[in-house]
Amino acid sequence: MLSHIAPVPLEKSSRMINHGPTVLVSARHNGVANVMAAAWCCALDFAPPKLTVVLDKSSRTRALIEQGGTFVVQVPTVAQLQLTHAVGNLSLNDDPDKLQKCGVELFSIPGQEQPFVAGCSAWLACRLIPEMHNQLAYDLFIGEVVGAWSDTRVFRDGHWHFEDADASLRSLHYVAGGQFYAIGKALSD
Amino acid sequence: MLSHIAPVPLEKSSRMINHGPTVLVSARHNGVANVMAAAWCCALDFAPPKLTVVLDKSSRTRALIEQGGTFVVQVPTVAQLQLTHAVGNLSLNDDPDKLQKCGVELFSIPGQEQPFVAGCSAWLACRLIPEMHNQLAYDLFIGEVVGAWSDTRVFRDGHWHFEDADASLRSLHYVAGGQFYAIGKALSD
Repeated sequence: MLSHIAPVPLEKSSRMINHGPTVLVSARHNGVANVMAAAWCCALDFAPPKLTVVLDKSSRTRALIEQGGTFVVQVPTVAQLQLTHAVGNLSLNDDPDKLQKCGVELFSIPGQEQPFVAGCSAWLACRLIPEMHNQLAYDLFIGEVVGAWSDTRVFRDGHWHFEDADASLRSLHYVAGGQFYAIGKALSD
Repeated sequence: MLSHIAPVPLEKSSRMINHGPTVLVSARHNGVANVMAAAWCCALDFAPPKLTVVLDKSSRTRALIEQGGTFVVQVPTVAQLQLTHAVGNLSLNDDPDKLQKCGVELFSIPGQEQPFVAGCSAWLACRLIPEMHNQLAYDLFIGEVVGAWSDTRVFRDGHWHFEDADASLRSLHYVAGGQFYAIGKALSD
């Protein structure tokens, strides 16, 4: 699997989420790993790259991030539609077999401690920038991107190549319920 | 033009930006109106609905929002690709005829003081929630959505209907430079 994965320069990493995909957020602390879906994730800065993500107080992943201070934001694909919807609806607090039941396979990237979700198209390793007022008042978390990788079949040379890649590799864009859109046609001005 | 526009219940308003479109941000203060493009805008809460938007310190629209405390976030369409790229690259500080040169037509919605951009598919009228630390440290602004309207040809009954609407009404999703993607196929789990 790692044969398709290559590092992305940090200064290009915001492009991986500029187009507004729904993301998966993963974290591990004290041997407990979890993955959740988040529609509300957004780039915040270029250098150093930062992002925001909204994490509900009820989510176990949030607790792991608060405790461990690191997490991964990754871009799931059309092939992962069911997985994405499933991890967004089942809580590890209710079912200790959540990840297995949702079909999540985790993998490691050398030098990184956090769990990465296999099958995604882009991965952003983040360090939490603690901002307690934002976290408590708005459920808003800020991460500094400290590492970025992509599936080179669909993101390479600092750009998405959805138009040349298999349609199953397109990003997912959540609306409500189980409804998503795939990203569509490339346009340029 | 107003014949296609209808109010959207506030509790459904987050769906208008859940799928991660690039937006236009407009504001007016002391008779000066401006419009900018923002790829970094994201829903923050459901009730009351809130959103975040990143506004660079160099942007005139940011100054108008800081002074007036209100703004509009709107979702431009594929038909507005050039307009969206243009308002994101030309500053009112450099050219007082910016809006005219970019082809921006403003309109009013009864009861609302802010300027709305004609031809968009969705409009969210926002009240700035002042958070000076976020604004100064991160260029991050939080707005409470106090009114929402959509072009019913493409957003109605609380849902996007891109699949049934003219392709020119699809949302834009920015990558970099003049490169965008249109939103694509509807998918459901």
